[in-house]
Amino acid sequence: MQTPALAGGHPHCHAGAPLLRPAAPALRLACSLGSELRRRSLEWSPLRRERKARPSFCHPAGKATCLLRAGVTMSTRLPMRPPGSVPAVLLGFRPAPALTGALCLRQNLGSSSPGKKQSKENTITINCVTFPHPDTMPEQQLLKPTEWSYCDYFWADKKDPQGNGTVAGFELLLQKQLKGKQMQKEMSEFIRERIKIEEEYAKNLAKLSQNSLAAQEEGSLGEAWAQVKKSLADEAEVHLKFSAKLHSEVEKPLMNFRENFKKDMKKCDHHIADLRKQLASRYAAVEKARKALTERQRDLEMKTQQLEIKLSNKTEEDIKKARRKSTQAGDDLMRCVDLYNQAQSKWFEEMVTTTLELERLEVERVEMIRQHLCQYTQLRHETDMFNQSTVEPVDQLLRKVDPAKDRELWVREHKTGNIRPVDMEI
Amino acid sequence: MQTPALAGGHPHCHAGAPLLRPAAPALRLACSLGSELRRRSLEWSPLRRERKARPSFCHPAGKATCLLRAGVTMSTRLPMRPPGSVPAVLLGFRPAPALTGALCLRQNLGSSSPGKKQSKENTITINCVTFPHPDTMPEQQLLKPTEWSYCDYFWADKKDPQGNGTVAGFELLLQKQLKGKQMQKEMSEFIRERIKIEEEYAKNLAKLSQNSLAAQEEGSLGEAWAQVKKSLADEAEVHLKFSAKLHSEVEKPLMNFRENFKKDMKKCDHHIADLRKQLASRYAAVEKARKALTERQRDLEMKTQQLEIKLSNKTEEDIKKARRKSTQAGDDLMRCVDLYNQAQSKWFEEMVTTTLELERLEVERVEMIRQHLCQYTQLRHETDMFNQSTVEPVDQLLRKVDPAKDRELWVREHKTGNIRPVDMEI
Repeated sequence: MQTPALAGGHPHCHAGAPLLRPAAPALRLACSLGSELRRRSLEWSPLRRERKARPSFCHPAGKATCLLRAGVTMSTRLPMRPPGSVPAVLLGFRPAPALTGALCLRQNLGSSSPGKKQSKENTITINCVTFPHPDTMPEQQLLKPTEWSYCDYFWADKKDPQGNGTVAGFELLLQKQLKGKQMQKEMSEFIRERIKIEEEYAKNLAKLSQNSLAAQEEGSLGEAWAQVKKSLADEAEVHLKFSAKLHSEVEKPLMNFRENFKKDMKKCDHHIADLRKQLASRYAAVEKARKALTERQRDLEMKTQQLEIKLSNKTEEDIKKARRKSTQAGDDLMRCVDLYNQAQSKWFEEMVTTTLELERLEVERVEMIRQHLCQYTQLRHETDMFNQSTVEPVDQLLRKVDPAKDRELWVREHKTGNIRPVDMEI
Repeated sequence: MQTPALAGGHPHCHAGAPLLRPAAPALRLACSLGSELRRRSLEWSPLRRERKARPSFCHPAGKATCLLRAGVTMSTRLPMRPPGSVPAVLLGFRPAPALTGALCLRQNLGSSSPGKKQSKENTITINCVTFPHPDTMPEQQLLKPTEWSYCDYFWADKKDPQGNGTVAGFELLLQKQLKGKQMQKEMSEFIRERIKIEEEYAKNLAKLSQNSLAAQEEGSLGEAWAQVKKSLADEAEVHLKFSAKLHSEVEKPLMNFRENFKKDMKKCDHHIADLRKQLASRYAAVEKARKALTERQRDLEMKTQQLEIKLSNKTEEDIKKARRKSTQAGDDLMRCVDLYNQAQSKWFEEMVTTTLELERLEVERVEMIRQHLCQYTQLRHETDMFNQSTVEPVDQLLRKVDPAKDRELWVREHKTGNIRPVDMEI
């Protein structure tokens, strides 16, 4: 299917010199794409007029149309946002060099040599999306051949597991994303449970530390014992700090990250779904126009046959009218196909942009979770370290325990008399 | 009070050559003391008979009597136990070199020169115990001068803190001992509480480890996450082991050590108290005999005066009778004083033996507690170490987390189609 050497984007959009300069890697895709395409839509508008003036029937959507469509697509989308802003899901997006290439390929859509004619069997339309026909399909190189990128593998719809209907490829990606976020949320909840356990443990240790058991032990042993008890309070402190840091440095970040995520995903979902709906309605329009053209053509053919038989003036007038109408139906169909292709192109671009964004978000999610789990192990590590240090003062005092010293202290305080008895005399 | 150069044991028991060879340090006091004294009681029995034959009035309790008493003491005490066994409180007792000296000193009790007369003011009897009189008291060297030994500082009784009656010095030592055991028991209970906390903590960790939160996380991140969860089970295991070892190596030994302790202490208590009671009853007998002698002496004096006045035969007979009775009363008093001194000597020896034993037990207790608290810190230390090791596998898997790899896995499984759409043709 893939030949790495070929840049097989669109079957009839090959070989054109790249129209977009490779974007500076630091530029955001949406911005660079938007401005480039707006510029191009102005550049190419004369060409658009020229194309309109030409007989449009059987004229394949050319490069100019393709870019124009893209330009229109962008211009209809941009007013929906404040100038200079980009949707949340696109924030921070940096196109990889490979992606820049992919976008160039996409820009080449429709840049076929105008003279080349294509048979209808070159394409096949499934769920209103038009693919190259399997039998005559030219090689397509993946947009990002080495990356298993989302933008390369979700063009088709998938049969619904329940058997009725289909699920869009993009829907699968969204579900993956939502599930990922759910996982992250559950990890956060898991950490929350861990925090509770630590808090409970710390509470119990602190409480036991306050216990008065053996508080009357005296001397150096008494001091060591008091330190044993105190060390429990220290341990409690260590575990409380652990739980506090778990909260601020693991649980909360994991939870916060998804703050606007679902909203953004919904927006993406609706946007792509709307584009698919538009594609469907425009596909319906194409079908309707195609049917109308067929009728007009049949009418013209019939009238032409009538002319051959009757040779009347009136009929010649009718044929002229029918030809005009047929030509108009052809133009209508071409306009519909053009609109359809514009919609598909718009969808295509949004698919690439959004799936790449989802891919970036997923990398970000995995990295983010990885970092916070590393933070968790780091905190665990520190906790064990600090815990060690709570034992040290106990060990020190245990080394100082001296029964002889303790006896001296006690005897000094409690002695009753050191005069020994003597025999009674008579 | 003390002149180190003087071996001031009993005021009239000085200067005798040591009758007991210093016991080998490894021998147990009770055994060596018992066998030595039994041997001596046989050796000295002729001397005992000799002493009995002599006029006993005004004869101070001599060395032989002293040793005899000790022998009797031992022989009346020993049958209470199986041959070769020693009471629990005496087990493992090793007399210090200083103690061996002290026992020699004690053996010298009563070895005064027979001709030396003592005025009654040389002694003072308090609560039936006879001490050297403060005004005429010779220097006494402590039995164990550098050790603040129990055997040196609890000869007198102490005024009861409640104001009524007195408390024997030995009672204070016993209370100290019982309190020490109570402390040990409370430490054991404290450790028990700690064990409960550890068990609870381990239970909670193990339970959380089984939690299904984020179980559907996939790929290398999923593996790391699973290890995070597993590490909680490992931690739980570490804390369970800690609590199990705390139980077997700290809590239980601390609790077991006092198994027969209270019983042994009660036995000691009764034994010493019985000796004090015997001392009291013998003191009462002395007082009674002294009163009887005084009466007999007054009677003799009266009759002697009558003789001087009347010079009758009958009176001379009466005087003879009165003198005989007076001599007999004198003998009685001497025998009573002898018995009193025997009882006091017995009490003295039991006091030395038992207080030294209590002292040894206290050293043992402090050392034993110290060791088990060291064991506690050791277990704490190991627990922290093992805990560290539960984090290591998590860290390893976190280092292996690779978003690109995870994406490849997921895309391979879930991809819908990598054929990109193309423009529709007319």
